[in-house]
Amino acid sequence: MNQFIERTQLIQEWIYDAAKLIKSSFEENLDIQQKSNRNDLVTNIDKAVEKQFIEKIHQFFPGERIMGEEGFGDEFQNLDGIVWIIDPIDGTLNFIKQQYDFAIMVAVYEDGIGQAGFIYDVMQDKMYSAHKGKGAYCNKKKLPPVKDLSLKEGLVAISSALMSKEEGLARLVGRASSGVRLIGSAGIETAHVASGQLIGYIAASLAPWDIAAGKIIAEEVGLIYTKMNGSSIDLLQKNPSLVATPTAHKEIIMLLNTKK
Amino acid sequence: MNQFIERTQLIQEWIYDAAKLIKSSFEENLDIQQKSNRNDLVTNIDKAVEKQFIEKIHQFFPGERIMGEEGFGDEFQNLDGIVWIIDPIDGTLNFIKQQYDFAIMVAVYEDGIGQAGFIYDVMQDKMYSAHKGKGAYCNKKKLPPVKDLSLKEGLVAISSALMSKEEGLARLVGRASSGVRLIGSAGIETAHVASGQLIGYIAASLAPWDIAAGKIIAEEVGLIYTKMNGSSIDLLQKNPSLVATPTAHKEIIMLLNTKK
Repeated sequence: MNQFIERTQLIQEWIYDAAKLIKSSFEENLDIQQKSNRNDLVTNIDKAVEKQFIEKIHQFFPGERIMGEEGFGDEFQNLDGIVWIIDPIDGTLNFIKQQYDFAIMVAVYEDGIGQAGFIYDVMQDKMYSAHKGKGAYCNKKKLPPVKDLSLKEGLVAISSALMSKEEGLARLVGRASSGVRLIGSAGIETAHVASGQLIGYIAASLAPWDIAAGKIIAEEVGLIYTKMNGSSIDLLQKNPSLVATPTAHKEIIMLLNTKK
Repeated sequence: MNQFIERTQLIQEWIYDAAKLIKSSFEENLDIQQKSNRNDLVTNIDKAVEKQFIEKIHQFFPGERIMGEEGFGDEFQNLDGIVWIIDPIDGTLNFIKQQYDFAIMVAVYEDGIGQAGFIYDVMQDKMYSAHKGKGAYCNKKKLPPVKDLSLKEGLVAISSALMSKEEGLARLVGRASSGVRLIGSAGIETAHVASGQLIGYIAASLAPWDIAAGKIIAEEVGLIYTKMNGSSIDLLQKNPSLVATPTAHKEIIMLLNTKK
């Protein structure tokens, strides 16, 4: 068993602890702050969860670097060595407005290569996980390799920002598919592509912590995860992102380039 | 207790029976047929569930008329007397592709006035129900009157067809809100507006069975349910539909008329 599989139980315990903290906040008044714009929000709970993760990582794995959405981790110029990538609450808007459809995401990378990824859909109690080369799971159930369906055979998730834009690239994709779905959590949307419920997911601008865990899980079931132009994801910056079955991935890239 | 409340236990039992039938089909191969277009689908299960409802209604309430999505009910020129409106599986595409986010919907109208409405989110085991003048419930819990939030304070559900259109009316609404969500079941989307998780829901063309139960539930919690131009819903035809908080309803109608 490699060192990253050995970490699984510990990481999952931390995630379940974080989920308890998040759910206990439902009855409280959240302290909500704006980040880049009026719909990019952070709460005291996002921050508390990230700090909790960082504390535990420092305790159990001293010296390993941490990249976190809320900025309590380290600064990064490269991905050398072991790097933890944490999103304490993916889908903060859903957490605030809906109290469902949000996830906790943790990934461990080594020299830029994804080794272990976890997406926990808190309200559905679904733990999606994967280790490089060992397949992906939803709770204890192994996810089968995805069927290589084409775009017209499946539902596609498209981010709200992308669907609301006037220029119509994403809508070309929507119309070529069976239909568009929009959950508002990159983690859950990616997990649903991995479990075969969606054919693909595209988003205009995903941060490293939106991508890191999902990319490992997606690749373990045979999905292709790249930038929207087909080039490799860069986990040191934001990426216009596309994850899909091999066939749908090709079709979507072709459509996205039709109008350019 | 009026006669429509007396029917509640029976209707809910029928719905739970239908849910069992639907879930038992998950392991089988569905017989899938196209209706109006390649994404307007019906399965043998939709048909079996509708027939089961019709049989039970005929047995317990002989002489009452039935309007059903799959066409096994009666023909309608008016809504006189007691009329049952049934959607055996709302969100058939989700049922087929995702095995979640679909609902069973039953409504009872009398002389065109909604008396009792039921939306059952099968996979979440959530029974949304309402009787005219008696409030709305999710399972045994009474839903409080919705907060009259404005569009920018909430998430809005917009149908896939509407979001994928080139002309940008719906996207004006999306950009003025906190964000767009797209579930693909009119019943579940309306239920989520009623439970305060969404601020509103708009769809280009809802059939009477997509609207009937949700409208009763929505109105019991203080939502406004009309056509997209603000006029009254007509349950004898398809309607471009809008359900929202009073304030968001006004704002959305204003936006939808901006570009006309």
